[in-house]
Amino acid sequence: MILNNITDILKKGKRFFLASHKEPDGDAIGSLLALGEALILSGKEVVLFNEGPIPDSIAFLKGIERIVNSFNPESESDFDALFVFDCGNLERLGRISLHLSNIKPLINIDHHENNSQFGDLNLVDINSSSVGEIIYRLIKLADLPMNENIAENIFVAIQTDTGSFRYENTTRESFAVASEMLGWGVNPWKISRKVMDEYTLKKIRLLKAALKTIELCHAGKVGLITITQQMFSKAKADRFDSERFIDYPRFISGVEIGVLIREIGKDYYKFSLRSNDWVNVADLASHFGGGGHPRAAAFTREGSLELVKQEFLNKAFGVLRNVRS
Amino acid sequence: MILNNITDILKKGKRFFLASHKEPDGDAIGSLLALGEALILSGKEVVLFNEGPIPDSIAFLKGIERIVNSFNPESESDFDALFVFDCGNLERLGRISLHLSNIKPLINIDHHENNSQFGDLNLVDINSSSVGEIIYRLIKLADLPMNENIAENIFVAIQTDTGSFRYENTTRESFAVASEMLGWGVNPWKISRKVMDEYTLKKIRLLKAALKTIELCHAGKVGLITITQQMFSKAKADRFDSERFIDYPRFISGVEIGVLIREIGKDYYKFSLRSNDWVNVADLASHFGGGGHPRAAAFTREGSLELVKQEFLNKAFGVLRNVRS
Repeated sequence: MILNNITDILKKGKRFFLASHKEPDGDAIGSLLALGEALILSGKEVVLFNEGPIPDSIAFLKGIERIVNSFNPESESDFDALFVFDCGNLERLGRISLHLSNIKPLINIDHHENNSQFGDLNLVDINSSSVGEIIYRLIKLADLPMNENIAENIFVAIQTDTGSFRYENTTRESFAVASEMLGWGVNPWKISRKVMDEYTLKKIRLLKAALKTIELCHAGKVGLITITQQMFSKAKADRFDSERFIDYPRFISGVEIGVLIREIGKDYYKFSLRSNDWVNVADLASHFGGGGHPRAAAFTREGSLELVKQEFLNKAFGVLRNVRS
Repeated sequence: MILNNITDILKKGKRFFLASHKEPDGDAIGSLLALGEALILSGKEVVLFNEGPIPDSIAFLKGIERIVNSFNPESESDFDALFVFDCGNLERLGRISLHLSNIKPLINIDHHENNSQFGDLNLVDINSSSVGEIIYRLIKLADLPMNENIAENIFVAIQTDTGSFRYENTTRESFAVASEMLGWGVNPWKISRKVMDEYTLKKIRLLKAALKTIELCHAGKVGLITITQQMFSKAKADRFDSERFIDYPRFISGVEIGVLIREIGKDYYKFSLRSNDWVNVADLASHFGGGGHPRAAAFTREGSLELVKQEFLNKAFGVLRNVRS
């Protein structure tokens, strides 16, 4: 029903505003570019918006130059729809979220369990590995064209959100869509090296320093890795260089909750959380005003490192003890 | 033709000897167990042989207890065929390779480009990601049964040989087979954590030490990482803990040849080589008596670390200069 409504809008509309969350990942950008190009090839007009910053690892994606990071939608009123991708709530778009109220309908396409259903139409499929996989279905249903660029963007969306077909959200359908994308000429080796694997010397310097901070708590059920501002600056590295560092504590045998703590300002910390089997880290993060998926979530916290870490560990202890005592 | 012959043998035979290379990986063990179980379910008798040692990361595979590491085939003569998996030459089986001459026909199933065609029947498909993918085709063609265990072993074979669907050997077919395996109940998250991702504290200690040795040579085209016996013993780690460490130098931007040098005895070194775009490292390794795939190869060398490293770098320089000067 929702799917048919959205398909109709895609077929009949002439001009669309498409946007995805700030601090984007491969799914946010891949989805935006894939549907964007499919609509352009159908003779429609699109504005593709992302506040950024776009990480180097996905800056090579085909069509990336079409994305704008500033736009005044209040001066425009002739959009046939506003599509928002991969956002649990509208604020995830960034500053522009306050200025979109005159574009209707608002179509919310997402796969986060805690999505606030902020759209006029909400297509929230929590069983989909990625928004890219939903975009693929929409392109097929709306009879929009496919080509290698679109296929590459859909592949990147799925590959990055599944950790290259490893994470719990990987489904039979994810593999089937990926297989079809290869039929369009996508080269997984070329793509993976850029979006999944690329190292730089500064990233390796940062990793060396970060590995020294790994600690296990609560009988080895919680593994933490910490990166301070000093470590970033000494390695001449930035936040993007610490992508996926959380996998080191997370994948130590016995760990249930993997934690990456990054100092993002003076006495200001971002906690990224991953769980392996059963802890709902979105719930855990919500105690500190954050959110996410059951297996991947985040929050920010002010205070000294010792204090914020202890607060988190206390709460984690409660969760680990209560649910499986 | 070959495929039909092998299919016939699988259908008509009653008792088979199946073996794969010593120091096995996920493809060697997954292929052995997958075809083994399919034959057992068809009421046939099998001996599954691997010299070992089997790494912890794949020791959980379903049916692993069926594999024997010693057997005297000379005392037996009633096998209908000998299947050898994932071996470029017969010697890769280990010591048993000298004692198999009375089992006929010898069926060589492999995907290595430099396979010596040592079988009576040779099914060598260099376009197949893994032997596991070939086994899947054989099971279908011979109408052998499938179940979740078989599917899991085929999935592991493909996932480990493609670096979780990232390496150059990943094809449309690899994804399609993986998708079908998920239909049999395979859980990629459960599997991946064991076969791809698991860390231990000793592995992290070893990684910390190894990252300090990373060096770039030949204008950044060669990236090396070195692990000495002292580093292994100080970290209380072993060879298996250094699996995939080669990816760190390999994926530094600009690197074409990634090299992992491990001291495996007094003044005795194993060089593992990976290339990213164009260098044929199987050729390069063959200068030192080794071999492998164009993108993944290895050799061993005696001498001091300085000497063997310099010999290798000299040869690599020639390759890098001659082919793309």
